[in-house]
Amino acid sequence: MTHRNGPNPLMIQLFCWCLLGLCLPPWALAAPPAVALPQGIDLDLQRIHTAALQSPRGMARLTELCDTIGHRLAGSVALEQAVLWAVAGLHADGQTNVRAEPVQVRAWKRGNESLQMLQPRSMPLTMIGLGNSSGTGPQGITAQLLVVSDEADLQAHAAEAKGKIVLFDNAMAPWSREQGSGYGKAVRFRSGGRVLAGKLGAVAVLVRSVTAHSLNTPHTGATQDGPEVPAIAAAAVTVEHAQMLHRLAALGPVRLHLTMDAHFDADRNSANVLAEIQGYEHPEEIVVIGGHLDSWDVGQGAHDDGAGVVHAMEALRIIRQLGLKPRRTIRVVLWTNEENGLAGARAYALAHAHELANTVAAIESDAGGFSPVGLGIEVTETVRDGQGLAVAQLQRLLNLIAIPQFSEVNPGQAGADTSPLLKTGVPGLELLTDGAHYFDYHHTAADTVDKVDPQQLQRGIDALASVAYVLAQWPGRLSRP
Amino acid sequence: MTHRNGPNPLMIQLFCWCLLGLCLPPWALAAPPAVALPQGIDLDLQRIHTAALQSPRGMARLTELCDTIGHRLAGSVALEQAVLWAVAGLHADGQTNVRAEPVQVRAWKRGNESLQMLQPRSMPLTMIGLGNSSGTGPQGITAQLLVVSDEADLQAHAAEAKGKIVLFDNAMAPWSREQGSGYGKAVRFRSGGRVLAGKLGAVAVLVRSVTAHSLNTPHTGATQDGPEVPAIAAAAVTVEHAQMLHRLAALGPVRLHLTMDAHFDADRNSANVLAEIQGYEHPEEIVVIGGHLDSWDVGQGAHDDGAGVVHAMEALRIIRQLGLKPRRTIRVVLWTNEENGLAGARAYALAHAHELANTVAAIESDAGGFSPVGLGIEVTETVRDGQGLAVAQLQRLLNLIAIPQFSEVNPGQAGADTSPLLKTGVPGLELLTDGAHYFDYHHTAADTVDKVDPQQLQRGIDALASVAYVLAQWPGRLSRP
Repeated sequence: MTHRNGPNPLMIQLFCWCLLGLCLPPWALAAPPAVALPQGIDLDLQRIHTAALQSPRGMARLTELCDTIGHRLAGSVALEQAVLWAVAGLHADGQTNVRAEPVQVRAWKRGNESLQMLQPRSMPLTMIGLGNSSGTGPQGITAQLLVVSDEADLQAHAAEAKGKIVLFDNAMAPWSREQGSGYGKAVRFRSGGRVLAGKLGAVAVLVRSVTAHSLNTPHTGATQDGPEVPAIAAAAVTVEHAQMLHRLAALGPVRLHLTMDAHFDADRNSANVLAEIQGYEHPEEIVVIGGHLDSWDVGQGAHDDGAGVVHAMEALRIIRQLGLKPRRTIRVVLWTNEENGLAGARAYALAHAHELANTVAAIESDAGGFSPVGLGIEVTETVRDGQGLAVAQLQRLLNLIAIPQFSEVNPGQAGADTSPLLKTGVPGLELLTDGAHYFDYHHTAADTVDKVDPQQLQRGIDALASVAYVLAQWPGRLSRP
Repeated sequence: MTHRNGPNPLMIQLFCWCLLGLCLPPWALAAPPAVALPQGIDLDLQRIHTAALQSPRGMARLTELCDTIGHRLAGSVALEQAVLWAVAGLHADGQTNVRAEPVQVRAWKRGNESLQMLQPRSMPLTMIGLGNSSGTGPQGITAQLLVVSDEADLQAHAAEAKGKIVLFDNAMAPWSREQGSGYGKAVRFRSGGRVLAGKLGAVAVLVRSVTAHSLNTPHTGATQDGPEVPAIAAAAVTVEHAQMLHRLAALGPVRLHLTMDAHFDADRNSANVLAEIQGYEHPEEIVVIGGHLDSWDVGQGAHDDGAGVVHAMEALRIIRQLGLKPRRTIRVVLWTNEENGLAGARAYALAHAHELANTVAAIESDAGGFSPVGLGIEVTETVRDGQGLAVAQLQRLLNLIAIPQFSEVNPGQAGADTSPLLKTGVPGLELLTDGAHYFDYHHTAADTVDKVDPQQLQRGIDALASVAYVLAQWPGRLSRP
């Protein structure tokens, strides 16, 4: 589909690639794909870098969203305000085709909730209900505690689970440069613990908050939901209290009282917010950039995902303000209901099904407002043919963009809101950031705008704008299966 | 009082000290004081080091206190349990003269409390009442907010303070190796802000939590109290919410509703807990080591000051268990009510007034269970004559003990519970620790036992036991004015 193009003689290139082949994945053994960019794009990129890095607008926008609207769970009035805020902002930026596309979302409500230790002594525990959890009824649940470390430990104590409150005390590994965060591995108990324990007759499930750093900080997040899931209450306790309960349960019986009003209200109308700069040559070909407007119902949703929303809005604003003319359309999509339903992502895929064959990439920023380090890419969820080539193409594009420290390409990682698009072959991308502290704040009252560094936020805007512009200008397209 | 003693010829020493004099404080210009220790003490110290560093008892003791009793504010049932726990533990260790000496303490109760933003939007704010604060009455207080950065800013807006809730949004500098923590400077608004704002007619006072690291973590602590202090409610908000309120107040009026049930119940009986190894040669001369049994009414009081309590109990246990015979008496004192009254410290000074002339040092461990780095020392609060010599003596003793990284001597720093002793000339000492994270947890729900590293805790026990033993064996005494 693409032809090779480079300054080096063929033999030298082949030799180098053969050498590299000893330590690279199979797709890297192929000759590097050509990604020749139009002449003059260097100057355009330079203007984007300068505009993005010198602007104070990203932080001002994020602060406005966080302070004047605050957190914005699907089904809340605040999310409706955030939709209006985004529409007004994109209009004010002079964008084209600004619109709110209706999405019906489920409206999960936390209500009052508390967890009390009754035995061996009376003490309130720090907890937060998991999104989409059932409630306990007004009387609450009083039961003995069973603490397990993981699935095998639960199976070993399967006979004891019936009638108990089961706590999964599974530690998340701290972030490291080599391993990244331990989130992907530890989060399975938050999402699936309800099913595991419920099937054994547990009356409620608790999970250790999914984080490696806690100041007695409870972390919420979605728990698995659906007709097949036992309708028991599920909540997170803090790392501190999970460990204490584990220690106390080793000494003798621990009894707890859990009360959660959690329930679903009637579905509400929400919306995805869209805006564009139309392509001058191929307006029908689309580069999607976006984040999600909703957040959990604690903190301010600053890193998750106010930062992604602002990355996308500001990237489009800067490209327009500089008067740059992309060949393809660059579209901002601010999805709704990412956190506990993906209704916005599904609605977008459905409403824009006719455009997906011509959607050259969908890039979500949902890894916080930290310094950008690269891109994740997933070409399909199931078929990996062609993924290798797209990865190599993307790596070359990043090399040409040449933003310092923004160079990783991570296959198999895409934003959650792009997942319904993958099925149709759209390459799903995600802006990767320095992940050292993301899960300190994730889904907590501490995800507030003061945790976002203005310069790092602007670097993310620069990265997203640059990638979007290059994908819109490049004559080629990321390879599909 | 002491004579010089050293392997180097006089002239070389004098020359070296003159050179050093260019960059050292005045007391260092004097010849180094002799602190010759009895023969064989090296072996004793080696046995202390080995026993302390290999024991798991410190962590087990601290965990028992924290998990089974928990936090223990003066006037609480939990503090009474802690007194009994300490007495039983010291008896079990085989200590001499184990006793609980009665102390009457004021019983401040937090009760229910909450802070709500009403304007520009409705949202609950994360707060914690300050110890010894007045309450608001059952109706609470609704008032407009005035945010100031410091005293000068308050004076500049003095005319606006009447009828307002005043927030001191003063940032604490983060810890650095050079500067230490910014706590000493920033805490003045927590202790004194109530007086500053109350005198101008403020109806309540809020302070930014005194910490440089927050996950929306509220920090309590004592606010100034007494007949001359305006009886208005005082609370801390989190760093995040202080900053948000500051930003919002710059945009327009902010109205808050504060409710605090805070009040004093009738005084309660509490106790200082004491135990000893009696000196074989000078039983009447005493080295005091201790920490405070009480804590704030959140978290577990693990670093503050469960660690200090365990440092002292374990230090004495190890010295006894090794069969070491100190010339002087080593006495553990576990003070009560350090946090919001110092009633235990005053009671100890009064009950033991006849012994203070022969109290050669009083060492408090109240800087957490982190790695020990040295000792603070203050010889009197007012008269500094002789302090220099005591500092130099202590530095020599530390050099002879030679525990790695345990070498700092910091003049002018002593444990709060030793302060009533200073007036009588007793040298007050404090175990200094690595302070990088102490104020992350201080006075919060996050001060829990999982924050204490077992090895670091044992190193603190080693340091305290070694210093106590050396001060008990050294024929000399730290110089007094």
